[in-house]
Amino acid sequence: MSEHRSLVRVRLDVSYDGTDFAGWASQPGLRTVQATLEGALARVVRHDAPPRVTVAGRTDAGVHARGQVCHVDIAATAWDLMPGRKVRSAEEGLASRLRGVLPPDIWVTEVRAAPVGFDARFSALGRTYAYRVCDDASFRDPLARRHVWWHDRTLDLGLLADASRMLIGLRDFSPFCRARDGATAIRDLAQFSWERLTLGADAGLVVSTVRADAFCHSMVRSLVGAVIAVGDGRRDLDWLASVAGSTARSGAVTVAPAHGLTLESVEYPSDEALAQRAALTRARRTLD
Amino acid sequence: MSEHRSLVRVRLDVSYDGTDFAGWASQPGLRTVQATLEGALARVVRHDAPPRVTVAGRTDAGVHARGQVCHVDIAATAWDLMPGRKVRSAEEGLASRLRGVLPPDIWVTEVRAAPVGFDARFSALGRTYAYRVCDDASFRDPLARRHVWWHDRTLDLGLLADASRMLIGLRDFSPFCRARDGATAIRDLAQFSWERLTLGADAGLVVSTVRADAFCHSMVRSLVGAVIAVGDGRRDLDWLASVAGSTARSGAVTVAPAHGLTLESVEYPSDEALAQRAALTRARRTLD
Repeated sequence: MSEHRSLVRVRLDVSYDGTDFAGWASQPGLRTVQATLEGALARVVRHDAPPRVTVAGRTDAGVHARGQVCHVDIAATAWDLMPGRKVRSAEEGLASRLRGVLPPDIWVTEVRAAPVGFDARFSALGRTYAYRVCDDASFRDPLARRHVWWHDRTLDLGLLADASRMLIGLRDFSPFCRARDGATAIRDLAQFSWERLTLGADAGLVVSTVRADAFCHSMVRSLVGAVIAVGDGRRDLDWLASVAGSTARSGAVTVAPAHGLTLESVEYPSDEALAQRAALTRARRTLD
Repeated sequence: MSEHRSLVRVRLDVSYDGTDFAGWASQPGLRTVQATLEGALARVVRHDAPPRVTVAGRTDAGVHARGQVCHVDIAATAWDLMPGRKVRSAEEGLASRLRGVLPPDIWVTEVRAAPVGFDARFSALGRTYAYRVCDDASFRDPLARRHVWWHDRTLDLGLLADASRMLIGLRDFSPFCRARDGATAIRDLAQFSWERLTLGADAGLVVSTVRADAFCHSMVRSLVGAVIAVGDGRRDLDWLASVAGSTARSGAVTVAPAHGLTLESVEYPSDEALAQRAALTRARRTLD
């Protein structure tokens, strides 16, 4: 029997409060989402080797996720042991076991056997982030303080829209990325919009939605920081144009604080198109 | 000059994350909202006597508030010192000073000189609470875990509505209150509704809105606990009718956990009607 037949690829959808994590990626001696999740998998699934999780969006320290997606390959023999007396499917069995051992700041929202060709990182068509800002002292809510940036200046939604619009499209985002030698910073920014919400639990907040095929390191927070500098009147559109037109990362851009940022969702193609997409992406470039 | 002319009554609107407070009311050796707020007032306002705050809704340990209202009487001489170099009004001056010394889990959303006759407790026409429940494992959000109750059983919105409707109106809520000798438990429950939200930051949650002229101790959480027992199928409407028809607190009612409850708002009459309302309420009964 070939190697790939003895493994089951499992898709995990997870949410986490990033406050007390040093980001997604495992780092020696630090509490990270990846290490916590891999530790939980090691406890509930019998593995020959330590389980290794691949993720769609490698969030930085303090960044949250509501719709993070990752995958892990599990021995088919271990997968078959997942259904218990109370649950019917292996999916429910693994979800229930993981929830039982994970700390309260990570939650597995869904477990499913991944379709053929699925790769959490390389199959993804896009990632959508939300950045939440409170610019009105009368709306600051201590219950939301861990995922909303309390900004001291009032934001002009018209200016935010004008500034964001300048950055949309397929372009080199080097001015907004931490340099990595040899890696391209060409990305396709599909959406960068701002809304002042009037209803629901986010009422009173200014929320930005930022969607692209992929992001390089600190890109969302750099984009948000640059546009907010225009939206609160400290900078103008000419300044933003000159930043966006430069070829390297601009020291003039203040990166927005991590805790206002949440990875909301990851978009994938239909099951049939999955394998094709992953091969294409892998061939073209290495994504973050 | 008479006593009341030398004092300014100030209305404070406050929000807090109740997680790390032992409730509103001061208790020796415990961290409470009242003691924290009074301590902050003592630091920023010159007082002859320690400042004493009167509140609309005395929340229990772990209960949150987004629209809590209280008042404090401040010496007119101290009030006149509140405007600083940067702020024009005494209101803004006191708000800014309090925000500067309060911990991150309390926020003063607004400060204003109260209208004549205003009493945060006795002028209030009603209090509105929200109780948030997540009954679907795929919607559990670690970012909201401090103010949402994760319930293990699925709720039927039709049953919740039927059960709540039985309890609305002017009635003796003794079966749902912790007894206090001599105090009446007659309250006017104006609204007790349930909604499964599909949009916004609370999407996926079941949220109850509970509004009454006033509540006795642990009343909201007892009402919610009783109705949820019907809504998840553990009890039926006949059981609820028998509980509601009894004359003392029922041991069969499970009080819902504190952390799902948030005081959302306090309703007051128009300025002109304020003094009249306070005198009437004070004469009729002592409210919680």
